[in-house]
Amino acid sequence: MAQLRRDPIGGRWVIVNTEHPMLPDDFIKEEHKFKPMSCPFCPGNEHMTPPEVDVIRDENTMPNSPGWHIRAVPNKFPALIIEGDLDRRGFGIYDMSHGVGAHEVIAQSPQHDKEITDLEDGEVMNMLSMYCRRSIDLANDKRFKYIMIFKNYGPSAGASLEHPHTQLIALPMIPKNVLEELKGACSYFHYKDRCIFCDILRQEINDKDRIIVENKYFVALCPYVSRFPFEVWIMPKKHNGYFCHATHEELPEMAGILKNVLARVKAVLSNPAYNYIIHTTPVNTPDMEEGYHWHIEIMPKLTRIAGFEWGTGFYMVSTPPEIAARYLREAKI
Amino acid sequence: MAQLRRDPIGGRWVIVNTEHPMLPDDFIKEEHKFKPMSCPFCPGNEHMTPPEVDVIRDENTMPNSPGWHIRAVPNKFPALIIEGDLDRRGFGIYDMSHGVGAHEVIAQSPQHDKEITDLEDGEVMNMLSMYCRRSIDLANDKRFKYIMIFKNYGPSAGASLEHPHTQLIALPMIPKNVLEELKGACSYFHYKDRCIFCDILRQEINDKDRIIVENKYFVALCPYVSRFPFEVWIMPKKHNGYFCHATHEELPEMAGILKNVLARVKAVLSNPAYNYIIHTTPVNTPDMEEGYHWHIEIMPKLTRIAGFEWGTGFYMVSTPPEIAARYLREAKI
Repeated sequence: MAQLRRDPIGGRWVIVNTEHPMLPDDFIKEEHKFKPMSCPFCPGNEHMTPPEVDVIRDENTMPNSPGWHIRAVPNKFPALIIEGDLDRRGFGIYDMSHGVGAHEVIAQSPQHDKEITDLEDGEVMNMLSMYCRRSIDLANDKRFKYIMIFKNYGPSAGASLEHPHTQLIALPMIPKNVLEELKGACSYFHYKDRCIFCDILRQEINDKDRIIVENKYFVALCPYVSRFPFEVWIMPKKHNGYFCHATHEELPEMAGILKNVLARVKAVLSNPAYNYIIHTTPVNTPDMEEGYHWHIEIMPKLTRIAGFEWGTGFYMVSTPPEIAARYLREAKI
Repeated sequence: MAQLRRDPIGGRWVIVNTEHPMLPDDFIKEEHKFKPMSCPFCPGNEHMTPPEVDVIRDENTMPNSPGWHIRAVPNKFPALIIEGDLDRRGFGIYDMSHGVGAHEVIAQSPQHDKEITDLEDGEVMNMLSMYCRRSIDLANDKRFKYIMIFKNYGPSAGASLEHPHTQLIALPMIPKNVLEELKGACSYFHYKDRCIFCDILRQEINDKDRIIVENKYFVALCPYVSRFPFEVWIMPKKHNGYFCHATHEELPEMAGILKNVLARVKAVLSNPAYNYIIHTTPVNTPDMEEGYHWHIEIMPKLTRIAGFEWGTGFYMVSTPPEIAARYLREAKI
């Protein structure tokens, strides 16, 4: 019989197929086929993007020219733009506003064919530091309430460019999914006077069944209430709500475990498309941090979302996280 | 500049690309490629499914043999099963229960290659009646709180079988998405003493911009806060929360508009994959119907959900509903 499991943070139920679980070879993976095009993120093509907003580059090299190691630029086709006022207003029964926000892209390395798993540890650290530098800079704009950092890898995960990159979107409101998570964590905190994520970590480290790997400051696990097969969360062991408050000692360990986990996902699932998202507290919004605990959620793209999921908000999970964690834990990397 | 629009029911924001909208030919459609297999829903193969639970068939034909026009059977690989107790319990910090529920499939016609758009109006009416017959029968089981009716058309919308069919899942709890919609509608009702869906209908019929087609009892429109390009809602003009309370006069008009709208979607978007979902009130749950208004949501599968959507719960809509409605309204069918 399948199992129904309830997420204690957001209250979401998932249906876990414990009876006929899908194993790594059972998934049909799509090829990573991109439209052939001149790459705007390759060195020499810096003119193809808007001017860089932050960069780590060799001394004596000019802005917007080769010689960079990691480069942040505004998105050429932004979902939201930084100029203008929100001008929020009604339209009959509806609400609308101008699409004010920011949309940036971070090219992780000058090399077109180097994914995170191919980078040096120092390069992954630079990438994570750049996430923070851009977040902190964008948070200086008091109109923004949330900075969403996410990566789409592979066309079936929504990537339209092949050159490895991460996106940042600054939003003038706290997104619905984030608010739900914050509220869930906050109400647990008020009830128990403890962080729900810390309690989850304690239980998981004790159980061991869903743990993939850990180091001094971080744990990678398949969550008990996964929404997707082989979903992975990377959580800091020390309670901290805001991603950019991670310490200098934590940074190398964070880079190490991210690279390690992505290498396991790649090995076990034959280089699948995936999304990862940094879950962190809002900015310019006091009192929203209580009981929250930042973390990274990695979601390999192995199945299709169908009518049932759209209608219910429930998920059918074809691989129990216990089995997924075992495969990832035992991966040869 | 893009527009941010807020759904007055669930409070979801979407980002509408009003500046560079995608038009029907801009979407990359996937082929409808299925695994070759013997079809369990074709006449003569009735033994390949569990025995039928309801059927419309020719007189003097035997159950589970050819001669049927529409046939409902339990899913051979059900996500949830009908036997047993929920046995809801804690697992440390989490909640779990047995996967109790029901999962049925309705083969819409004996013909493998006849989609809804190819059926006679009477056949579509039979299909919609069968949705109700199965819903009402399943609701007799007091353990069930919600009957979700949905269709996945095409592999990229999650269909694994080619023979046209619809699925029903009976759930022992009200799904998260449904609850949100119910609560939103209910709080508007308490505030205004009016149904929010009725108010939306009034505004849309007045505006005309997003209306595709209407008949005596139904309106088809592209919602102002669409989550997907070319999303369509079919709404009854008369206030009614529960799908199965649609009247006998409404049924032919419902069948007519569903077929008409699907033909438009097919013509404009070159036969795309799609999901549709019937949004209706829960069962065996008193006091949940106030201010709710049943409707059908049709979501063509034209774009991929990426990190931004997963992280935020917001959607980026590449075609404004005003433009989508114009294309669908002017479709040659």
